[in-house]
Amino acid sequence: MTTAEELGERKVIKLILACLEQMPEAPVPFGDDVSAVEIGNGRLAVIKTDMLVGKTDVPSGMTLRQAARKAVVMNISDLVAKGVQPLALLASIGVPRNLTEKDIRQMGRGLNEGAREYNAYVLGGDTNEATDLIISCTAFGICQERHLISRNGAKPGDIVAVTGLFGKTSSGLKILLEQLYASPQLKSRLVRAVYMPQARLREGLALAQTRVATSSIDSSDGLAWSLHEISRASNVGFLIHNLPVAQEAKQFAEINNLDLTELVLYGGEEYELLVTIEPRSWEKAKEAVEQVGTTLINIGLVTKQKTILLETEGMTVPIEARGWEHFKTG
Amino acid sequence: MTTAEELGERKVIKLILACLEQMPEAPVPFGDDVSAVEIGNGRLAVIKTDMLVGKTDVPSGMTLRQAARKAVVMNISDLVAKGVQPLALLASIGVPRNLTEKDIRQMGRGLNEGAREYNAYVLGGDTNEATDLIISCTAFGICQERHLISRNGAKPGDIVAVTGLFGKTSSGLKILLEQLYASPQLKSRLVRAVYMPQARLREGLALAQTRVATSSIDSSDGLAWSLHEISRASNVGFLIHNLPVAQEAKQFAEINNLDLTELVLYGGEEYELLVTIEPRSWEKAKEAVEQVGTTLINIGLVTKQKTILLETEGMTVPIEARGWEHFKTG
Repeated sequence: MTTAEELGERKVIKLILACLEQMPEAPVPFGDDVSAVEIGNGRLAVIKTDMLVGKTDVPSGMTLRQAARKAVVMNISDLVAKGVQPLALLASIGVPRNLTEKDIRQMGRGLNEGAREYNAYVLGGDTNEATDLIISCTAFGICQERHLISRNGAKPGDIVAVTGLFGKTSSGLKILLEQLYASPQLKSRLVRAVYMPQARLREGLALAQTRVATSSIDSSDGLAWSLHEISRASNVGFLIHNLPVAQEAKQFAEINNLDLTELVLYGGEEYELLVTIEPRSWEKAKEAVEQVGTTLINIGLVTKQKTILLETEGMTVPIEARGWEHFKTG
Repeated sequence: MTTAEELGERKVIKLILACLEQMPEAPVPFGDDVSAVEIGNGRLAVIKTDMLVGKTDVPSGMTLRQAARKAVVMNISDLVAKGVQPLALLASIGVPRNLTEKDIRQMGRGLNEGAREYNAYVLGGDTNEATDLIISCTAFGICQERHLISRNGAKPGDIVAVTGLFGKTSSGLKILLEQLYASPQLKSRLVRAVYMPQARLREGLALAQTRVATSSIDSSDGLAWSLHEISRASNVGFLIHNLPVAQEAKQFAEINNLDLTELVLYGGEEYELLVTIEPRSWEKAKEAVEQVGTTLINIGLVTKQKTILLETEGMTVPIEARGWEHFKTG
């Protein structure tokens, strides 16, 4: 009989979803970044749960405070990608027996920090003894149904854009997990991207309120994977002509003789938003995001043909459906 | 340094809560069975998360389907105790590598069953590789703020009542974990109480809608522990004069020469509601619960003195603050 290990995470999710009866007229389909329930007056209650497991989600050197903060931020990021202000979080924690009182306080502080940075509160939760460190958070928010940005609205001709540059976390992970070299200053910036992820709250809200995005997703599974997710949900393809390369990733790739495109596309654990925008709304979108201090970067076009391609140095290469793979701690 | 093992679950929760900033004017205080956020028009969004861990929450002989159903029901039960109809659930699952495709399907079915039995839907979730089997569910519902029954409204003179009889699950657990004897027929009924817990949805809603309960809690940590929780939150005591003994527990205690009071008070994993009712509303409460097919059982009185006492055979003995202790699988 096939085991979970052989099936892989995505097949496991498929098997479970196949057993679930769907809520009639659910405002958000199965498999989007969040779930939602209508609460009247055109509003939705939006909820999301995502589990951090110590063994696979906490690289060496990350403190428990950072791990707990990250467990909160990764849930908030999914609300943010839909344009929803997070209001409240719950945290369900599996506590290994040998954690100390100090460790537990650090976790409490990290949970609180993650929530307060985004103007939300941790309202409660649950703790249990477990072998693994588990921090399973649930984020809750409310939005106008017409403001919610789904995954499935991208149309051929739309501009595809991101809220920042890529490659820092994948570089940071290579330092932490494979002991690759970077100068102290570069190392500190790359590793910080891993330890202190930032969700793009203001950008997500600005895009939702101006109603200019036709689809949106965060890039926590990597830029390539996120493009494939939007492609599947919206039934479109992409032509990427401007790879959003972080300067630090470029330096790191040069020092270590790595493929920069690989670092930028297939990294993961980044929390930039990937959005699609109708061309006639582009200036409006750019302005809305600029008003909160961020540059929206045009990286390519939505295409009718369902291929996902990168145009680079005059050549066109496919962007593969590879995503973030869980990593082992050292 | 003190470890989590030495601190115990309740101290761990306290340490974490102490790190969290409280939401101003939160409609439900920290430490109640659920958390809530105001959503306008006098309504609350009510959320709850509770984690099932294979090692400690799944006794031998319980199938994965039953375990997944239980993970849902234990969350629903907390909403129910507050008088809130569950609408949606999320499930965050830690999957051991060696689970089979069939196991995963069984889990999916159990999640769906648990939700559909109470007219709710599982809307989504997350899966991760973990050493332990982890099923962390979040339940979501909406209620009128004035219908929500807290833990802290019990007043001296109120009648304390329960929605059913106690002792079956603790007996069932003794069969499963300590291999105590019962006849096949008795065994089947006791073990079923463990494998297929039932949340008191209709009773909880009936009590909320008639607004007759001054406080309410489920009894998942045992009757004694639940009395102590209401006592702490409401700043009252109890005099219990009518122990709600299940006939099956009485038989089981006789066969095995066990202390019946121990089985009834200190068991846990029972999902009956424990409520307090003003004497002048007693008939109304009783009728409301009878209309959904259940007898509300008067077991004693709320007292001003903050002691929790059992009157039995002319003697008065204290009910200790002992609760449900996690059990190891065989």
